[in-house]
Amino acid sequence: MNWKTDYRSFYYQGAPEPADLNLRPEETALLTIDIQNIYMHLSDDPAERLRWTPFHDRMTNIVIPTVKRLQTHFRAQGMDVLHARIACLLEDGRDRSLSQKKPGWNYLLLPKDEVSSQIVPELTPLHGEIELTKTTDSALTGTNLRLILQNMGIKNVVMTGIFTDQCVSSTVRSLADESFNVIVVEDGCAAGTDELHQKELETINMIYCHVLSCDEVIQVMGLQ
Amino acid sequence: MNWKTDYRSFYYQGAPEPADLNLRPEETALLTIDIQNIYMHLSDDPAERLRWTPFHDRMTNIVIPTVKRLQTHFRAQGMDVLHARIACLLEDGRDRSLSQKKPGWNYLLLPKDEVSSQIVPELTPLHGEIELTKTTDSALTGTNLRLILQNMGIKNVVMTGIFTDQCVSSTVRSLADESFNVIVVEDGCAAGTDELHQKELETINMIYCHVLSCDEVIQVMGLQ
Amino acid sequence: MNWKTDYRSFYYQGAPEPADLNLRPEETALLTIDIQNIYMHLSDDPAERLRWTPFHDRMTNIVIPTVKRLQTHFRAQGMDVLHARIACLLEDGRDRSLSQKKPGWNYLLLPKDEVSSQIVPELTPLHGEIELTKTTDSALTGTNLRLILQNMGIKNVVMTGIFTDQCVSSTVRSLADESFNVIVVEDGCAAGTDELHQKELETINMIYCHVLSCDEVIQVMGLQ
Amino acid sequence: MNWKTDYRSFYYQGAPEPADLNLRPEETALLTIDIQNIYMHLSDDPAERLRWTPFHDRMTNIVIPTVKRLQTHFRAQGMDVLHARIACLLEDGRDRSLSQKKPGWNYLLLPKDEVSSQIVPELTPLHGEIELTKTTDSALTGTNLRLILQNMGIKNVVMTGIFTDQCVSSTVRSLADESFNVIVVEDGCAAGTDELHQKELETINMIYCHVLSCDEVIQVMGLQ
Repeated sequence: MNWKTDYRSFYYQGAPEPADLNLRPEETALLTIDIQNIYMHLSDDPAERLRWTPFHDRMTNIVIPTVKRLQTHFRAQGMDVLHARIACLLEDGRDRSLSQKKPGWNYLLLPKDEVSSQIVPELTPLHGEIELTKTTDSALTGTNLRLILQNMGIKNVVMTGIFTDQCVSSTVRSLADESFNVIVVEDGCAAGTDELHQKELETINMIYCHVLSCDEVIQVMGLQ
Repeated sequence: MNWKTDYRSFYYQGAPEPADLNLRPEETALLTIDIQNIYMHLSDDPAERLRWTPFHDRMTNIVIPTVKRLQTHFRAQGMDVLHARIACLLEDGRDRSLSQKKPGWNYLLLPKDEVSSQIVPELTPLHGEIELTKTTDSALTGTNLRLILQNMGIKNVVMTGIFTDQCVSSTVRSLADESFNVIVVEDGCAAGTDELHQKELETINMIYCHVLSCDEVIQVMGLQ
Repeated sequence: MNWKTDYRSFYYQGAPEPADLNLRPEETALLTIDIQNIYMHLSDDPAERLRWTPFHDRMTNIVIPTVKRLQTHFRAQGMDVLHARIACLLEDGRDRSLSQKKPGWNYLLLPKDEVSSQIVPELTPLHGEIELTKTTDSALTGTNLRLILQNMGIKNVVMTGIFTDQCVSSTVRSLADESFNVIVVEDGCAAGTDELHQKELETINMIYCHVLSCDEVIQVMGLQ
Repeated sequence: MNWKTDYRSFYYQGAPEPADLNLRPEETALLTIDIQNIYMHLSDDPAERLRWTPFHDRMTNIVIPTVKRLQTHFRAQGMDVLHARIACLLEDGRDRSLSQKKPGWNYLLLPKDEVSSQIVPELTPLHGEIELTKTTDSALTGTNLRLILQNMGIKNVVMTGIFTDQCVSSTVRSLADESFNVIVVEDGCAAGTDELHQKELETINMIYCHVLSCDEVIQVMGLQ
C-alpha cells in the first residue's frame, strides 16, 4: 500500500499528499488495545463460529503477528510499548460505563483478574510495561492514559488492536482531539468484517490519523 | 423506519430488539453540533460545488428543518436545547487541537467572532441557551459539556448535526463512554455522502446510541 | 466536636448551620488516600525523626485505627471501600506529573510494585475492592476515579488519608468541583503538623466539604 | 522577598533552594482568575463591610495594580494573557457544580451576562484575549483550559487572582497535577484575611508552585 494516497474517503479525494512523518523514538509509543482472550474464543454455536471465522483467521494470521513484530522492534529501540484492555475493577461490573452495561454485543462483564479479560498469551505485556484497564471504548476517556503519555513526553502514538470501528476508532479520535499525532497500523487492526475494517480506516484516515501498513511504519521509522 | 431493527451492522445482526426508551423531559437535552455558515458555503469551483450538491440539498431540505422542528418541540416542553460549534478563541488558532491544525479538509481556522463560524441563521440559539465553542471534533473532549450536562441532571442526549462520521460520531462515542444514553436523529444529521452517513449510523447504532428518525423521537417522547 | 459549627474560617463566620446530611448507603463510598508504607518510615536522621514524631504518633494512634474502624463499618453494610495510593507505573517514573517529579519533599519515585509504595498492612485492601494508583496529588486528576464513582452511582464520598493540606485537600477540591458531596473525617486525616491539619480543615470545610469526626459520621449514617 | 527561601511550610524547612526559573516567553502565559465586580461590592451591613475592609483595600491598592502591571508587561512582549471568571451559562444556574450550588459563602449565582459577574473594569480583557467562564473553583476542572494551554504550547503559568485559599489554590493544584510549571504572584492574589493568604501560600509553595513577588517575576523574566 501507499499511505500517502490510500484510504481516502469523500472528504480527501484529490487532497495533496501529507508531509513525511517525523517519528522521533523518544516521542513515539506503541499502543495495543483489547486483544484479549475473550475475543479469540470460538462460539459453541456453529453458525456464529462460521460468521466470525474471517475475523479469527485475520487475528491469528495477520494482526497478532504484526503487533508482535512491532512490539519487538519498539522494545529493541527502547521505545515505550503500552497495552490497554477492557476490564472492570469490580466483579459485578458496576464501574463500567453505560456503553458496556447495555444489553447486546458490547455488553461486557470482564473482571480484571479473570482469564477471559487477559491479553492473549502471544502479546502478554513484559514486566515494567504499562497495562491499563478500561470500562469504556476510548482508551482515553476511561483511563489516565492521556496524562501519562504527556508526562512521558510522547507526541506520536502508533495504534494497533481491535475493533477498528469501535475501540480503535474511539481511541484514535480521542488521541487526535488531544493533539497526539496518531498512526494506525492497518494490518495491526481488525473489525468484525473486512468491509467494516476498510470503511473505518477510510473514515479516520487523514483527519484523525495516518493509516500505514506495518512495513511502512518500520520503514518510516527506520526500524530495520 | 423502525429504530428497533434498522441500522444493524455485523455485530448486532440477530440481536434482540432493545427495550423501550424512557426519556424523561427533565433528564433529556437536545444537542446540535457544527451546523455553521461555513459548511453551507458553496465552492467557487464548479466541480467541487457539484460534488457537494447532495450534501447541501440534504442540509437545506432535511437536516436544518428537522433540527428546527425538534428545537421547537423541546423548547415548548421547557427542555434544554444546547448548541456546539467549531471555533477557536484566538484569531491565529493556536488553541486548536492538532486534528484541526493539520492540512487538509479538517483544517479549520474559524475564529469565534467571524461570520463563517456562526451557527446558521435558521438555528441561531435563543437568548439563554447554552452555546459552546470547541476546537476538537468531540464536543466533550474540547469543552466542559460533560460536567455541565451532569450538573443539569441530564441523562439522555438527543444528537443532531454534522458530520455524521466525524464530529457527530466522535461526540456520540464520548457521550456513551461517559454513560449518557444517546439518541441520534438520522434525519437530523448528514455526512459528505449518503453512503458515509448510512455506514456510520450502522457503526454507532446499538453500541453507542440508538438511531431514530425525528418522527420516532417525537412519538417516543410524546411530544406531539 | 460539632460539625455544624466547628472548623469555620473567616468566610463562614456567622453563617447558618448546614442542613442535615442524607448519606444513603448505595450512594456513599469510603475513600482512603496515600496511607502507604513510605510515610510510616522513620528517618535515620534523629532530628528529622523527632520533627516527624507527632505525625507518626497521630498516624499510629488515631488515623489508622479510625480508617480501619470506618472500613469495617462500611464493609458490614455492603458499602464501597476504595483506596488510592501514589505510585508510578514505570520504574523510572517518567509517567509522574511534574508536581511529583520536581526536587523536594514531594519528589516521589514509588514504582507500583515496590514495598514502600504499598498501602500499610493494617489497611490492605480486601480482594475485590478498588485500588487506584496515581502520580498526581488529586486522586481525580490522575486516575479514572471520577468516572468510576459516577458509574457506580456514588454521590457522597467519605474521605480519609494523608496529607490533609496536600493530596486530601486537592482530592476534596476536585470532588466538590465534580459535584460530589464530600465528607472529610477529621480523625481519619493527618498533616505534617497539627496546625497545618487544623488550618486546612478550616480552609476546606463548608465550601468544599463537611468536616466530621468518625463518631459523627457513624452517628449520622446510623452505622452503630 | 526572596522566592527561593520564603513561604516554606513544615515540609520544606531546610530543603535546598530551588533551581533558577527558565520562563521562555513563548511557553509562558499569565492567568488571572475571578477578579470580578461582585467581589468588589461593599456590603450594606456596616459590620460585614468593616470585616471585609482589609480585603478591599488590598484589592484596590495592591492586587489590581499588580495584575494590571503584569498584563501590560506580558502584552508588550506578545505573551498570552488569559482570564477566567465564575459565571454560569444558564440564568437559573443549573449548570453550576455542587460546590457553587450549596448554601453559604460560595453559593454563587452569577449568570455570564450580568454586570456582577464581569471582570472589574481595570482588568477588562482586550479584544482577542481568551476569557473563560467556569462554575467550579478550579479553572481546569470546569473549563477546557488545560487542553487550550497545551495546544498553545504553554508550559509555565503565572497565576494571579482571588481567593488565594480557594479558586487560586484549586487551580494551582490542578495545573501542577497536569504538569504545568506554576508561578503564583504573591502581591497579585488575596484572600479574605491576610493570614489565610499567607498560610495558603506556604501550603502550596515549593510543592505545587513557586511563590514570587511581581518584582521578582519581572526580574526573572527580564521584562523590564
